[in-house]
Amino acid sequence: MNFCPHCGSPNLTHRIPEGDTHPRQICTTCATIHYSNPKIVTGCLPVWQDKVLLCRRAIAPAYGLWNVPSGYLENGESVREGARREVWEEARAEVRLDYLITLYDIERIQQLYLQYVGDLVEGRYAVGEESLEVRLFTEQEIPWEDIAFTSSAFTLRNYFRDRKNGTKQLYQNSYPATAS
Amino acid sequence: MNFCPHCGSPNLTHRIPEGDTHPRQICTTCATIHYSNPKIVTGCLPVWQDKVLLCRRAIAPAYGLWNVPSGYLENGESVREGARREVWEEARAEVRLDYLITLYDIERIQQLYLQYVGDLVEGRYAVGEESLEVRLFTEQEIPWEDIAFTSSAFTLRNYFRDRKNGTKQLYQNSYPATAS
Repeated sequence: MNFCPHCGSPNLTHRIPEGDTHPRQICTTCATIHYSNPKIVTGCLPVWQDKVLLCRRAIAPAYGLWNVPSGYLENGESVREGARREVWEEARAEVRLDYLITLYDIERIQQLYLQYVGDLVEGRYAVGEESLEVRLFTEQEIPWEDIAFTSSAFTLRNYFRDRKNGTKQLYQNSYPATAS
Repeated sequence: MNFCPHCGSPNLTHRIPEGDTHPRQICTTCATIHYSNPKIVTGCLPVWQDKVLLCRRAIAPAYGLWNVPSGYLENGESVREGARREVWEEARAEVRLDYLITLYDIERIQQLYLQYVGDLVEGRYAVGEESLEVRLFTEQEIPWEDIAFTSSAFTLRNYFRDRKNGTKQLYQNSYPATAS
């Protein structure tokens, strides 16, 4: 932020407002305080028989790597609507959400991942605009070396654990603050 | 947003960028796309013996009403850290988080509530800066008519249900889109 979005002034300062606990961008011309907060990434791992659906990313970052269909939650939608929309956009698939499996903080980049497990309706899917390729994998076929994000690996690992144990748990993990 | 925070231009338009699915604020001078996304409100219901801790709000909105200690997640912290911080700020209390009880979307105002149940450490608390009053309530004593937000009522109702049933569940609810 170089200019105040409210009044257009370049006179911005970064300090803790009176009565607040965290530093904010403050316009010294019009006194508006500008808040910045973490974003929600929502998604769903579609399941069909003994397989799960992954998408190979056609966009940066992690171009060409495999991912659980996910993306930023939009204004005006619920987390569950967002998860279904992302699966539709990336894999042209409908899912019936089953349970929330992942709450995964990445404090370093101000993201919170919320991912569901869902049933892939009628096993139907296609390649969405943001994907190079979409396919079903058994546990043995998962390309662990080519998974796009740690959040996806976390969800996949815990889904296969749940399936083995017959559980449907919520797994939470903080990304180590010291990791590169 | 009246001015582009990047270049200061007043030439902003609201439309769907090429390849996108949702309308955004776009600067027609420098071509920067400005995204806006829902915010996370995190908190925790502290439990001590057969009682729960609520705070009476000293700030707007809902001044004077009772609330589960909660607030916006800050950049650089995890949802769990945020929940503990909010309990500290509002009730000068430490909590050991037990389980995530609430995922509560309020699409209308771009908020997602994530609330935990936690143990109030040593039963100690005091009145934080954002509170008029802080106290422990049995289920029978809960001032249902004076609860600040529907999210808090949702968490309280489900916590007492869990306690009765001996369960520790995640409850999810979408705020009706048609509600006023």
